[in-house]
Amino acid sequence: MNILVTGATGFIGTNLTRELRKQHNLFVLGQFEGDHEKLGLPGIVMTDDIQPLADYIKSNEIEGIIHLASLYLTVHTPDQIKDLVFSNVYFGTAVLEAASIAGTVKWFLNTGSIWQNYNVKGPRYNPVNLYAATKQAFIDMAKYYSDVFGIRFCTLKLCDTYGPNDTRRKLFKLFKDYSESGEVLNMSPGEQKLDLIYITDIVAGFSHLVDLLANDEKLSDEYVLTSGHQIPLRELARVFCEVSDRKLNIQWGGRPYRDREVMVPWIGVPLPGWKAMVDIKKGVRLFLGED
Amino acid sequence: MNILVTGATGFIGTNLTRELRKQHNLFVLGQFEGDHEKLGLPGIVMTDDIQPLADYIKSNEIEGIIHLASLYLTVHTPDQIKDLVFSNVYFGTAVLEAASIAGTVKWFLNTGSIWQNYNVKGPRYNPVNLYAATKQAFIDMAKYYSDVFGIRFCTLKLCDTYGPNDTRRKLFKLFKDYSESGEVLNMSPGEQKLDLIYITDIVAGFSHLVDLLANDEKLSDEYVLTSGHQIPLRELARVFCEVSDRKLNIQWGGRPYRDREVMVPWIGVPLPGWKAMVDIKKGVRLFLGED
Repeated sequence: MNILVTGATGFIGTNLTRELRKQHNLFVLGQFEGDHEKLGLPGIVMTDDIQPLADYIKSNEIEGIIHLASLYLTVHTPDQIKDLVFSNVYFGTAVLEAASIAGTVKWFLNTGSIWQNYNVKGPRYNPVNLYAATKQAFIDMAKYYSDVFGIRFCTLKLCDTYGPNDTRRKLFKLFKDYSESGEVLNMSPGEQKLDLIYITDIVAGFSHLVDLLANDEKLSDEYVLTSGHQIPLRELARVFCEVSDRKLNIQWGGRPYRDREVMVPWIGVPLPGWKAMVDIKKGVRLFLGED
Repeated sequence: MNILVTGATGFIGTNLTRELRKQHNLFVLGQFEGDHEKLGLPGIVMTDDIQPLADYIKSNEIEGIIHLASLYLTVHTPDQIKDLVFSNVYFGTAVLEAASIAGTVKWFLNTGSIWQNYNVKGPRYNPVNLYAATKQAFIDMAKYYSDVFGIRFCTLKLCDTYGPNDTRRKLFKLFKDYSESGEVLNMSPGEQKLDLIYITDIVAGFSHLVDLLANDEKLSDEYVLTSGHQIPLRELARVFCEVSDRKLNIQWGGRPYRDREVMVPWIGVPLPGWKAMVDIKKGVRLFLGED
């Protein structure tokens, strides 16, 4: 299949394209010049003009789009709102517009977040932060294109992801850095639970959903990748120390919980036919390069 | 009450502010310098910096916001998408951000469209066009602010509006122009039904919802202003001719229906305690300045 990928140079993107290119012809829609060369894949750079992208999609007979590009902000400042809306609402809409003009695209795999559902009790949209709100807003923009042009649209909602070479300052990177420096790490009281998925499982999830979309399987609007385990932050620290044989000097309660800290992650409807294979101990070993 | 109004210089805005200023202290958030001077009201112009607006809201102790500003496009072109997203998603979000910083705002009256619901059979969101999709996307953004900052948010969905001095090229203006020129007016087959509300009834609807919001009445997320009558386009032409004693040279079927022509308007949940007072014959007379 000919597949266009956005956000291909990110953590998930680099891992996913490395795997998917074995089976499919990948094309990269980059934000900057050089994005696709970096990955050794053909590609095009997004500009204000949508027509060149439509032409590119048509001439390369793109059948599917995997949309990973996103601006992630846990907490926004007022001056970041325009970027959030531009990156997370406008950009994907422009890609769908180009797809609708090209007429070759059959499906669009969108990346969502379980943070669109702060209230774990209900199925209803209830954003943790403004980032999550932009994710929902894009889904509503996309509904126009799926309704009018029949593009199959499915959102894969992710919880926390981890793995080696992640440039994002995530939990295990923090643990690694502080276990090396020996400095005191101030953390919240640490009772919040996390649903962590190792990168190879994330890649397998995307890959599986690509197959479902391409094979015209009857699908819901959205699925969640969940590890099946919700582990308290304190327990994650313990596992990290045990597996790595390192020490962490954590001051639990050294900082307060964030406003709207997610204490229990939402699960929703898990992606059928997929299961996380890497448990947390194995994942930490792989993260540390010890497996 | 101290109320901030966006889109105050538009058709609904000019009529609404003329009425509301009798009871409330109105402040205008304009897109351009001079917007509020034109209306003889105090105001501020929107810039890229949200802080001055937050300061303005706080120092004027704004309690409520009426959000009328909108970019309306029946059919969009690719190069208009950025404007659509910016005007209909970003702008309102920036206003809510300013309101959340100011901390004085208790309620936000949003303007929606029945075109967010193309499928009249279901209650679900199903946009007629990309404009309607941006309306829904903004509601998603707003949910963050209502959930986190407790700002009461309610959307008033409008169908078609009409009245004198409307600069938009709407139906009765078209009829008026063609009845004067005598030219042939090519129209669709004309079986689509319209739900038309005269401007004074629209103003009364907004004014009533302002009261409900300010008085902490228990409210739904959204209401619709419906005239209670859905009248086929052909019948509207007949009424126009009868009331005005003019002739229209209409070629029915001289142009095809639009893609996704709305044949039957959605009704949803009508605003409680409000009723349209001006029927279509009276409305046409008022439109023509004959009453």
